[in-house]
Amino acid sequence: MTKTGATTDIVLADWGTSSLRLWALDRQGHLLEERRSDSGMGTLSRDGYAPELQGHLAAMSVPDETPVLICGMAGAAQGWQEAPYLEAPTGFAALADGAITITGQARDIRILPGIAQRDSANPDVMRGEETILHGLVCNGVLDGTVCLPGTHSKWAEIEGGRLVGFRTMMTGEMFALLGKRSILRHTVMSDRWSDDDFIAAVGEAHADPSRALASLFGLRAGPLLFGDAVPHGASRLSGLMIGAEIASCLQDDGRPLHLAATGEVAAHYARALTGLGIGFDMVDAELAVRTGLFDIASILWPDIIPERMQGGTTA
Amino acid sequence: MTKTGATTDIVLADWGTSSLRLWALDRQGHLLEERRSDSGMGTLSRDGYAPELQGHLAAMSVPDETPVLICGMAGAAQGWQEAPYLEAPTGFAALADGAITITGQARDIRILPGIAQRDSANPDVMRGEETILHGLVCNGVLDGTVCLPGTHSKWAEIEGGRLVGFRTMMTGEMFALLGKRSILRHTVMSDRWSDDDFIAAVGEAHADPSRALASLFGLRAGPLLFGDAVPHGASRLSGLMIGAEIASCLQDDGRPLHLAATGEVAAHYARALTGLGIGFDMVDAELAVRTGLFDIASILWPDIIPERMQGGTTA
Repeated sequence: MTKTGATTDIVLADWGTSSLRLWALDRQGHLLEERRSDSGMGTLSRDGYAPELQGHLAAMSVPDETPVLICGMAGAAQGWQEAPYLEAPTGFAALADGAITITGQARDIRILPGIAQRDSANPDVMRGEETILHGLVCNGVLDGTVCLPGTHSKWAEIEGGRLVGFRTMMTGEMFALLGKRSILRHTVMSDRWSDDDFIAAVGEAHADPSRALASLFGLRAGPLLFGDAVPHGASRLSGLMIGAEIASCLQDDGRPLHLAATGEVAAHYARALTGLGIGFDMVDAELAVRTGLFDIASILWPDIIPERMQGGTTA
Repeated sequence: MTKTGATTDIVLADWGTSSLRLWALDRQGHLLEERRSDSGMGTLSRDGYAPELQGHLAAMSVPDETPVLICGMAGAAQGWQEAPYLEAPTGFAALADGAITITGQARDIRILPGIAQRDSANPDVMRGEETILHGLVCNGVLDGTVCLPGTHSKWAEIEGGRLVGFRTMMTGEMFALLGKRSILRHTVMSDRWSDDDFIAAVGEAHADPSRALASLFGLRAGPLLFGDAVPHGASRLSGLMIGAEIASCLQDDGRPLHLAATGEVAAHYARALTGLGIGFDMVDAELAVRTGLFDIASILWPDIIPERMQGGTTA
């Protein structure tokens, strides 16, 4: 029984490197309760996953027979138990076939696989984003480019509801390293934000991505020489990195662009794309991952969840 | 008296962020003794410079009346005592006019200024490299592009023996951050070196500098998917960064290129340029900084050093 009094039929989880998000739902897909924690692959040892999950399930009074479906880094080789990668190109219903069952647990707990791009010129991997993408497909996004910004941003190409290829950019990690650990920290870290400076830097790096690297040291030298009369460092650093990312990853091919993100990072990328005059539609990544997980759960446990999500999937 | 028994007429020092190099010379410019330490601006407090220097001078039995001439970060605002920047464009003899005298010392100790490029579109600063550049000019390099690779690589344009402009690239710092602190550390840090992989990556990033950022995550994904059957991570990361740097900083204008470096970094950049089919001549940066310092010393203390270096300077 959850706090609402309804029965939890399924628990869904997005378990990443730095966080766990957990949702209790009924068989119609209604959200009954939600929990979050900062316990992710980065801090958990292999035998830390089961008690962490059990603690949340107990707190939500989830019945012993209710299954749990997990996506994300918990399925990595360094995670709880490895769910080997699917290979791109692939449809998303294949995620159900690739799900592994956690061994040694009384409860039925499964982890979805990530997806690998086994192309020696552009090797790439994702874990977690494939489930967001599946959620988009469930909601009728069958074609286009999807931008999933973050520490490691993913840019995915969807055709006919299938993933045909993707690229990872280290934009968020680079911003953090340069802003906190490099010589730029002196002028970037405690800096206020300016939308104008951000958008100007996005435009500059988008027009000539090689400028992004060549302009970095100016973020240190500018304030040394001109004091406050220079663009705000954090805004400019973020703009340079994001502008270069968009230039590298977005083809000028007229295909629809979908921005799948949540919170502050969503606002940043929306501002950057708008500043560049690039049209896009916005998708809440957190809703999408839940949609994707719930749809796969309906394939894995048809007795519990009798109906697939609207829109369905194409495999 | 030095170990050789000759009199030290002048002491020259290159005092940077992470190291001190000190040379005792006679009035003809002959090297009598040399000392090095890891005590730089990064570790010294403001009142740590005088005892550090005195320790080395005492160890070399340098007479009390022998002056010391210093270049590098010791003259930064956060260093021993600030030597305000000269402004580019500038000739190099102006370094003598900009030298400051350390206060409160019995001995005559002076620090050379750095050079600022007070251009709001390309703000930049150097401290130490200007003295290397002056050394090149003393040796007859009056025109061309000079590459000074390092943690923060400088690319300088020299015309008629004057510095007309320069750009700093954070290549070395970026390589260290990505290789040691990012997710790439797992596949880059302990990696062996391959010249072939390095040169291939240099070529790739030089042909399309935006590829440098877009190819980074592949350094993680490649070994995950293909094990050892992928390019060596450290070689490829270094090649991507250096290839993008050369593409950003080297104009295709037929002006002569001079590579001013020492040791391993010199070998890397030489290999990269040769791989790209770009002609250059090699200058030992450590010899050049000594040449530059000695020439300025001859301007500051004409009674001690009666003759200027061969080649002279144009101001």
